[in-house]
Amino acid sequence: MMSELPLEQVRTLLAVVDEGTFDAAAAALHVTPSAVSQRVKALEQRTGRVLLKRTKPVRPTESGAVLVRFARQLARLERDAWGELGLNGTGEPTRVSVAVNADSLATWFLPALTRVAGLCYELHREDEDHTAALLREGLVMAAVTSSPDPVPGCTVRPLGRMRYLPVAAPEFTAAHLDGRPLPEALSRAPVVVFDRKDDFQDAFARRHGRASVGPFRHHVPTSEGFLDAVAAGLGWGMVPEVQAGPLLDRGRLVVLAPGEWMDVTLYWQQWKLDSPALASLAEAVTTTASQTLRG
Amino acid sequence: MMSELPLEQVRTLLAVVDEGTFDAAAAALHVTPSAVSQRVKALEQRTGRVLLKRTKPVRPTESGAVLVRFARQLARLERDAWGELGLNGTGEPTRVSVAVNADSLATWFLPALTRVAGLCYELHREDEDHTAALLREGLVMAAVTSSPDPVPGCTVRPLGRMRYLPVAAPEFTAAHLDGRPLPEALSRAPVVVFDRKDDFQDAFARRHGRASVGPFRHHVPTSEGFLDAVAAGLGWGMVPEVQAGPLLDRGRLVVLAPGEWMDVTLYWQQWKLDSPALASLAEAVTTTASQTLRG
Repeated sequence: MMSELPLEQVRTLLAVVDEGTFDAAAAALHVTPSAVSQRVKALEQRTGRVLLKRTKPVRPTESGAVLVRFARQLARLERDAWGELGLNGTGEPTRVSVAVNADSLATWFLPALTRVAGLCYELHREDEDHTAALLREGLVMAAVTSSPDPVPGCTVRPLGRMRYLPVAAPEFTAAHLDGRPLPEALSRAPVVVFDRKDDFQDAFARRHGRASVGPFRHHVPTSEGFLDAVAAGLGWGMVPEVQAGPLLDRGRLVVLAPGEWMDVTLYWQQWKLDSPALASLAEAVTTTASQTLRG
Repeated sequence: MMSELPLEQVRTLLAVVDEGTFDAAAAALHVTPSAVSQRVKALEQRTGRVLLKRTKPVRPTESGAVLVRFARQLARLERDAWGELGLNGTGEPTRVSVAVNADSLATWFLPALTRVAGLCYELHREDEDHTAALLREGLVMAAVTSSPDPVPGCTVRPLGRMRYLPVAAPEFTAAHLDGRPLPEALSRAPVVVFDRKDDFQDAFARRHGRASVGPFRHHVPTSEGFLDAVAAGLGWGMVPEVQAGPLLDRGRLVVLAPGEWMDVTLYWQQWKLDSPALASLAEAVTTTASQTLRG
């Protein structure tokens, strides 16, 4: 199979997806845009499939994603082989692209990366429910994800549970929550959510018998900004205990419902490849996670 | 003009763009998906333009963006009018959608929001060179942007300059930069960039006569993660002085080229609307910015 794929065309497809446009891919490959376009067309004719969605940036179709993943795995193996031979290949560093959720990136993930020397990281920030999709598309070679179901061609290892506590600033609690039963308070009080995809606060409200949180929802789409917004009293929110801890100790945050929390189990999924680079990264990530997350 | 636009159809268009799909818009409006589809089609026939790109999520075309902006301004005016009448309208809070760059969000922007009571914020994080596009699309009603050119229908006010310093961890400097002329060091040493769009480190290298920084580029797409990655010694990077300051004082970061920096002038652009909500927000944002950014 592999030997029958025209590798130059497959690498060109990868360049288009990585660079986002045919023109940028042409510049990166030092060929003309029409050469890029011809190679992709030839590959589409050979496979009998449409491989790219001509969006901006260009994205692979489902069939295209299979070839993109193949091209990236090939590049990884080549570089590892050069590395083991003590040669530097094209002079390119060993790149590892990883999708990671914002809360992991803000807490335990970067210290894991610094444990592995010599790798060049390309991080993609995505909701933990959607990181597996980037793995499936071939955009990344590993992901921190909430999905225990292996993406085709990937292995899965559990990382631990990230615990989220329902918290708010003490002034906020006094103004909006005290003196009301919690379910009623949750359905009226201002709340901070990450973005439109973030269903976490609603899930907590549902547990208390309400369909959703109130209509007064601030959207703050960064992990640190979310914490700052809750601490500043803009609303209540579900905050990772590792972030909330220091502020709870200093009395800048209080827990709305003592003894209640929501856990998200995180997994490490990565390509099934005999790659020393990926193996050392997986080792560092699982070790660091086990020191921060709940077992 | 305004009175001739079929408002129900315009509001439906807005709902589709906000919710991302026809089905979600139907659920939000409590009508059937086919009613949503018919209304959008009727509006397209009436205006003689394609208004939506049928992508996932659905995005407005250039013509669609004009109507989306109109619909959002209309909604804003309606809500302000209800508010001034002392009535609560539909019971919906006063929503303000704002596009802001990651570094502003991580530093001075949230304290500005907490100065204005009673508004519900929907923040969109985007590169400062691209926030104006969200304003043009009608996705947001105000933006922190690097563009002084007003988006049609918007006013512009300067906020000040955000200063970026070229910094690295002391151990990193010793290993990668010391003993080499800076231009040569910049073109070889590992570097941290925000994402593929981030040209800032390259711009600094160009100022020193190099076409770009080296090939060893870590991508860390959050403001706080970027700072953490530089402080952990993964690479050098251009960091806002407000973030770098405390770490420079504690010796955890050093400046690579004393006396050198790059400034980004930031502007506040917002819809030209006689809206009390937007006016108080603009006031709070410009005041807070003037206390943090350079004049």
